[in-house]
Amino acid sequence: MAKADIGVVGLAVMGENLILNMESKGFTVACYNRTTSKVENFINGRAKGKNIIGAMSVEEFVDSLAKPRKVMIMVKAGKPVDMFIDQVLPLLDDGDIIIDGGNSHFPDTIRRMEYVESKGKLYIGTGVSGGEEGALTGPSIMPGGSPAAWEPVKPIFQKISAQTDEGEPCCDWVGQGGAGHFVKMVHNGIEYGDMQMICETYQMMKEGLGMSNEEMHDVFSEWNEGELDSYLIEITRDILGYKDEDGNAVVDLILDTAGQKGTGKWTAIAALDAGQPLTLIGEAVFARCLSALKEERVQAAKIINKQKSAFDGDKKQMIQDLRKALYASKIVSYAQGYQLMRAAAAEYGWDLNYGGIALMWRGGCIIRSAFLGKIKEAFENNPEIVNLLLDPFFKDAVESAQDSWRRVVTAAVNMGVPMPAMSSALSYFDGYSSERLPANLLQAQRDYFGAHTYERVDKPRGEFFHTNWTGRGGSTAASTYIA
Amino acid sequence: MAKADIGVVGLAVMGENLILNMESKGFTVACYNRTTSKVENFINGRAKGKNIIGAMSVEEFVDSLAKPRKVMIMVKAGKPVDMFIDQVLPLLDDGDIIIDGGNSHFPDTIRRMEYVESKGKLYIGTGVSGGEEGALTGPSIMPGGSPAAWEPVKPIFQKISAQTDEGEPCCDWVGQGGAGHFVKMVHNGIEYGDMQMICETYQMMKEGLGMSNEEMHDVFSEWNEGELDSYLIEITRDILGYKDEDGNAVVDLILDTAGQKGTGKWTAIAALDAGQPLTLIGEAVFARCLSALKEERVQAAKIINKQKSAFDGDKKQMIQDLRKALYASKIVSYAQGYQLMRAAAAEYGWDLNYGGIALMWRGGCIIRSAFLGKIKEAFENNPEIVNLLLDPFFKDAVESAQDSWRRVVTAAVNMGVPMPAMSSALSYFDGYSSERLPANLLQAQRDYFGAHTYERVDKPRGEFFHTNWTGRGGSTAASTYIA
Repeated sequence: MAKADIGVVGLAVMGENLILNMESKGFTVACYNRTTSKVENFINGRAKGKNIIGAMSVEEFVDSLAKPRKVMIMVKAGKPVDMFIDQVLPLLDDGDIIIDGGNSHFPDTIRRMEYVESKGKLYIGTGVSGGEEGALTGPSIMPGGSPAAWEPVKPIFQKISAQTDEGEPCCDWVGQGGAGHFVKMVHNGIEYGDMQMICETYQMMKEGLGMSNEEMHDVFSEWNEGELDSYLIEITRDILGYKDEDGNAVVDLILDTAGQKGTGKWTAIAALDAGQPLTLIGEAVFARCLSALKEERVQAAKIINKQKSAFDGDKKQMIQDLRKALYASKIVSYAQGYQLMRAAAAEYGWDLNYGGIALMWRGGCIIRSAFLGKIKEAFENNPEIVNLLLDPFFKDAVESAQDSWRRVVTAAVNMGVPMPAMSSALSYFDGYSSERLPANLLQAQRDYFGAHTYERVDKPRGEFFHTNWTGRGGSTAASTYIA
Repeated sequence: MAKADIGVVGLAVMGENLILNMESKGFTVACYNRTTSKVENFINGRAKGKNIIGAMSVEEFVDSLAKPRKVMIMVKAGKPVDMFIDQVLPLLDDGDIIIDGGNSHFPDTIRRMEYVESKGKLYIGTGVSGGEEGALTGPSIMPGGSPAAWEPVKPIFQKISAQTDEGEPCCDWVGQGGAGHFVKMVHNGIEYGDMQMICETYQMMKEGLGMSNEEMHDVFSEWNEGELDSYLIEITRDILGYKDEDGNAVVDLILDTAGQKGTGKWTAIAALDAGQPLTLIGEAVFARCLSALKEERVQAAKIINKQKSAFDGDKKQMIQDLRKALYASKIVSYAQGYQLMRAAAAEYGWDLNYGGIALMWRGGCIIRSAFLGKIKEAFENNPEIVNLLLDPFFKDAVESAQDSWRRVVTAAVNMGVPMPAMSSALSYFDGYSSERLPANLLQAQRDYFGAHTYERVDKPRGEFFHTNWTGRGGSTAASTYIA
């Protein structure tokens, strides 16, 4: 048998589906799994009759690969990845490529790339999005790591990835080091935000406007034809229209306690570490936390008297307003996400391909949408754009949605419908477009109690001043301070 | 000379002031500093004629201490603490106590306590709040660590700490392990929230209502006599009334870019890690980040057309509303902070003294306020209270502030004045008091694209269901899933 073009380690569903995807595109694929019975089952099952080589040991696996070898790890993120790297490294030749396709945290990817490169091999950490179905039919793939690894891997990855309607692959080189997994993490954070915003809209429709599942199904169907056209709107439409065998709307039977796997949290933490205001995703993560406190909420709902007014506006108008508010909030969310990526690129020295990232997310992944095409255009028009809100298209879009957005948030506040993500997005918009924020008072407070010093509006940046506010304590600024 | 009751290492201002505080309360204090010229300067300067022993080596320092020795480290948080611990440990006897009084991150304190205890010694990590002035005159002290260390240290700490008007010391045992530094961290996070809420109120008064510094000074003076009575309201009053020699209002000369030292960020990260919705502090931290993007904001303010309405209500009424909104938001902030501490206590096995924590914060520290007395009462009335919003006093307070709160947030939204923390607090209040949140839809989405499964309203908790929404992909729930 010919040597394989690529090898995949780890035969859980994601790994199997990726292998079948690769084989269907004309590649010969080797596979290995620590529990070798899984290899046998796969070879005799889903892989039967295909150009797929089953290996019963790591040595056999490595031997079956054409050079430069491409070893793709699809095992559980964490220790198992490190263990396999240590196992396979001594068997590889210089210039061979190890690829981690799991949901690894980007600092791990940075560390592993340095380690693997120190042994003369190349490393890629890549995001793979689209779930199990995407892995089989065409995922969004976000690879980063050793730049020299990209050329050999590119033909395979760009062929197995999703393709846009224009035939462009939803896979391109993201950047050095941990850039691939970082961008995948931000993707997941944005996914948290998108889902939360849709849920808030649903809550307003259901609790505020008293709409039925059928009515909401129709509205989301309509929305999916316009600027909000996206996978998440589409499945929301389907979910609202879905009935079980007994005719029950399944969505109404589901308990309102959200789970999470942690990548949204990672994104929020990365933003805190980078000092970037990722408020919408932060609120989306916290909203899941709050939903999980179900018993407490049930209790609190009995005890606390909420003063709220019933909706007394024009329902049709409010539905239009909701669509525009959702769109404007979504623009803010992506503006924040890109702001975070820009900060990370500066911090880690990554040369990120911003338009390419939008293209990678354009198809195959959970946040795929028509909207991402507009983001790609924004970066094509101006690769140096500092914030998406300043791009002419998005600036106009947000401005023309603004009245609706303010109406939705005020209605939610008056009706006691929690819309943390969408109202947080509006606060960010109002803050970002404010020349003056009240942080002058905050700096005065810090200088007052901790002699932290401040800069002045009438002096150059970087000059620091201290005021002896109390007349006590002298005029010396604090050297070490404990708040 | 007699042996010293306690020794302090690190003669920056905080260390010196703590020593002088201890000595003034009748204790003999030894001191040491790596750069020994600082010891000489201190002994011949501020410490002259006092019961303060200067040591020129670690050995001499240890020899000067009465047993069980109490060695308090006041050096820069991080590596210097570990280095000194390693230096002093071999010189100590079993049962001696090492105390870290710096701003250490609680996981470091947990690690250090285990290390020091493994060598037969005792460890305390303690928060010390109140800045340099507080260190000298009476700080808030929050010690945690080895329980056996508390009795010997208690008489010193409770004597040098701030005292409430009722004569209670603002220092008590917080709990095991890293509890002291954890609680200090939450204190700092709450400080971020309190400051941000005051700034939002100021922004609304200044930009929305067009109030002068004098008018705002008068309002904050009045507020400081009521339920908002607190150190931060007091210094805000003073700042708004402060003029330099040329008669300029200093607050207007200060650049609106907030700095931060990272403890607010730690608090937000701890909340994300614990899965607790600490939205207000999260927004407060992000608001500082946004303020720091000054150049971007100046640019954005020129480009983006904000549609906002001028204030057309009753100014006096709005000022009353602002006071109530600030109070209600503050209750939410503390409710969230306590929620986080409760989660941490459960995770780390700490037996936290919730009422005692309120008492420790009652005086000496930056967030000291009359309000904290009410929190102490709430925990005295019901030590098991799950959320402060369910305490009768706070429930009534928030309920009666509710109309004002909603008016303030809607006014801010319509006027384009960003109030991220206060509106986030209201979203939390509306969410926490909602029996039903829209997370049922979110769980449906997760099950749709990732086969994540869900719980049902009509089945016991802990049973998980999966729907084959698309008719494709089989009815198997995902084992490993990559979003």
